[in-house]
Amino acid sequence: MARVLTPRAEDFPRWYQDLIAKAKLADNGPVRGTMVIRPAGYAIWERMQAEMDARIKAAGAENAYFPLFIPESYLKREAEHVEGFSPELAVVTHGGGKQLAEPVVVRPTSETVIGEFMAKWIDSYRDLPLLLNQWANVVRWELRPRIFLRTSEFLWQEGHTAHATREDARAYARRILHEAYEDLMVNVLGIPVVVGLKTARERFAGATATYTCEGMMGDGKALQLGTSHELGQNFAKAFDISYSSAEGGREHAWTTSWGTSTRMLGGLIMCHGDDNGLRVPPKLAPVQAYVMVVKDGDGVSQAAAKLCDALRDAGVRVALDDRTDTAFGRRAVDAELRGYPVRVEVGPRDLAAGNAVVVRRTDGSKAPTPVADVVGAVLAALEADQRALHDQALEFRRSRTVEVSTLAEAIEASATGWARVPWSAVGVEGEAEANGQGVTVRCLVRADGSVPDSEDEPDLVAILARAY
Amino acid sequence: MARVLTPRAEDFPRWYQDLIAKAKLADNGPVRGTMVIRPAGYAIWERMQAEMDARIKAAGAENAYFPLFIPESYLKREAEHVEGFSPELAVVTHGGGKQLAEPVVVRPTSETVIGEFMAKWIDSYRDLPLLLNQWANVVRWELRPRIFLRTSEFLWQEGHTAHATREDARAYARRILHEAYEDLMVNVLGIPVVVGLKTARERFAGATATYTCEGMMGDGKALQLGTSHELGQNFAKAFDISYSSAEGGREHAWTTSWGTSTRMLGGLIMCHGDDNGLRVPPKLAPVQAYVMVVKDGDGVSQAAAKLCDALRDAGVRVALDDRTDTAFGRRAVDAELRGYPVRVEVGPRDLAAGNAVVVRRTDGSKAPTPVADVVGAVLAALEADQRALHDQALEFRRSRTVEVSTLAEAIEASATGWARVPWSAVGVEGEAEANGQGVTVRCLVRADGSVPDSEDEPDLVAILARAY
Repeated sequence: MARVLTPRAEDFPRWYQDLIAKAKLADNGPVRGTMVIRPAGYAIWERMQAEMDARIKAAGAENAYFPLFIPESYLKREAEHVEGFSPELAVVTHGGGKQLAEPVVVRPTSETVIGEFMAKWIDSYRDLPLLLNQWANVVRWELRPRIFLRTSEFLWQEGHTAHATREDARAYARRILHEAYEDLMVNVLGIPVVVGLKTARERFAGATATYTCEGMMGDGKALQLGTSHELGQNFAKAFDISYSSAEGGREHAWTTSWGTSTRMLGGLIMCHGDDNGLRVPPKLAPVQAYVMVVKDGDGVSQAAAKLCDALRDAGVRVALDDRTDTAFGRRAVDAELRGYPVRVEVGPRDLAAGNAVVVRRTDGSKAPTPVADVVGAVLAALEADQRALHDQALEFRRSRTVEVSTLAEAIEASATGWARVPWSAVGVEGEAEANGQGVTVRCLVRADGSVPDSEDEPDLVAILARAY
Repeated sequence: MARVLTPRAEDFPRWYQDLIAKAKLADNGPVRGTMVIRPAGYAIWERMQAEMDARIKAAGAENAYFPLFIPESYLKREAEHVEGFSPELAVVTHGGGKQLAEPVVVRPTSETVIGEFMAKWIDSYRDLPLLLNQWANVVRWELRPRIFLRTSEFLWQEGHTAHATREDARAYARRILHEAYEDLMVNVLGIPVVVGLKTARERFAGATATYTCEGMMGDGKALQLGTSHELGQNFAKAFDISYSSAEGGREHAWTTSWGTSTRMLGGLIMCHGDDNGLRVPPKLAPVQAYVMVVKDGDGVSQAAAKLCDALRDAGVRVALDDRTDTAFGRRAVDAELRGYPVRVEVGPRDLAAGNAVVVRRTDGSKAPTPVADVVGAVLAALEADQRALHDQALEFRRSRTVEVSTLAEAIEASATGWARVPWSAVGVEGEAEANGQGVTVRCLVRADGSVPDSEDEPDLVAILARAY
């Protein structure tokens, strides 16, 4: 077979770009750093949204929508926040044919405007917790854009909550981290993320604690796939989000925010993709079984259509490809590129023997299968390959993670993967030194793998890596 | 009961604002003309989206996402389009801390940027039709904003398609008009829209034909709830969207676009709302049955929870209100404001007699109902009230529509409702005269109610009204 993509081992970034273009997932937009998400990419995003939205709602948050435009003055109210975002802002100076009296910024994130409304809506402790989420586009001007990973505009969900106590806020930030983010990433996206605490240097601008889900990509680098923040009372004080307590006093609330974005599409590609294209985990896949008419012949189209119906009846998401005016080989290459978990190839020769061929994207296996058994074979393949993709990724992560005891070893190990090193051997100075060499502390975890409350806890493990 | 809202008859616009504020549907945003859609309003929008999205997909279109920012030069390529939108544009002049070399506009609609990509993606007739849709925010600077009806930023879906022939484009624009828009509005929103053709004066900037769905609001005015446009070859020529035909020649495509927005929320309120608040048609309602614990007592909470489970098992969307620390009267007023189709009130006294009270929002009726019969009663009420709301609106529209034969009569009739008048009695000059008095031609229909192809057809009926 002719080479379709630059092999990963030859040039990983080029492979990534090739794959996005050839699988028709996305294009660069006309304004630098923006992207066009094409139907094949957007369908995956819609499935991510649906799965995430269900988890967020199960955690009790409600969706709302806040404006794209934020008065510049709002961002300035929280000192760290404005400092963190100022260099990335897009500013609207003209509207309706006139220069605006006050320029407005295009939201880079919505803590400030949502803080303003939380302050209006919260009066008493009965109004807490206030659990909000929104699906929206945000803009952060990017100097070195890369599709899905860093774009000037991206799509995301951002949750914003207010609570009566620090403990409640912390519990909720962690609930989303584990029950929504980690669960989605591990069990649907099949990405075995490590969940931990960011160091102070890596925190969100304005947060008192940032938790993260980190995935290992196919080149051994790390990708931050989602973060959940405790904001302490920083935004509550800046926007006067306060409530009268049951005891009658007036208290500032404790807030959180948390977000995941179209960056997850980049993570999916770089975690599961191979030299033939994307591999989409079955639970996520918009099309789980791709039924192909190999070429026309006695009853072939009818058999393919019947298989589609039977698969659909069994709850499988199906698409039919009967474009026999396009060469089968080319269609098969496209199907590999798109990463449909299972292909069912229906052709005259196999059909004459009562068979269709079930091809699994995960391992490339091809099994002639009696037509009556195809549904069962597809269901078994979907089940097995959801697990297989996760397990392959986990095995890869393990094979590329080393335990070391010094900063120098950790920085060296970051050339090919992740290093686990005692945080006490790194510290704030070691972190700055690593950063100078392009290596970051991705997160801190406890020895048992659980998420610490503070970087000051003893016996923490730091995970160091190069990252996107 | 104390008056909750300004009565509609006293001050309709004030009633509308009151309702939105007190039902907590939305707030004004901090930047003039923007809005915050609160959870109660957004939940209705999500249901509209889900129903619309299913219809759009059933019509074969795929979702995609195009950038928020468009180079100013793109808009200038189609003369009527730029003229139509220039006064409403928001312009970004600074990004990433620097002045931009070319200012970018925030999309007021995406014909231009999508045209650019259609040109890249379409090569041969095999690539047609190309059927795209996106859910997005758009910005049109508004001098006299009104929540949901005219806001500087709003949420919508915009469909964009390219076809090989004018006939295909026309058929598709009309398919969306009827199968997606009219069907959703009539059968889910319960708004008996009139579907017709816009006059040349009222067309979308750059279209060759604009079709519309017009609803009558509770004050007799018209609201345009959705439009579908034939764009001819205007954008295809401006962006060079062309294809090689089966015969081997190079042809320009024929394109369409079509959109519906959060404006439908305004239409819903003004079509079905009454002096006690919103009334949401059952098929649309995020909460169809609102089960209220009147006050605590022997087994009351348990009975209410059991009813919730039984209703949920029967496929009803349910919410439980057991906030017995808030006065029941106040909660009932809030439930009326929110417009839940059915309330199920569970209190100690009724329950002692084996009953719960089923309250229908549509007509305010209250029926003590044996607990075992509540599910059946709720299902019957939901079914009946979906129809009842539609029929009431249709009856209202009929009662406020008059058949007249002259322009003067039509303008006079527009003070209280709609006028149907022969288009031949209006014409282009009459239309300008009507416009001067705040009356517009909402659309043209054939005598049999069907949608004309052109305003030059004989025997057309013009519908004149004041409009939002």
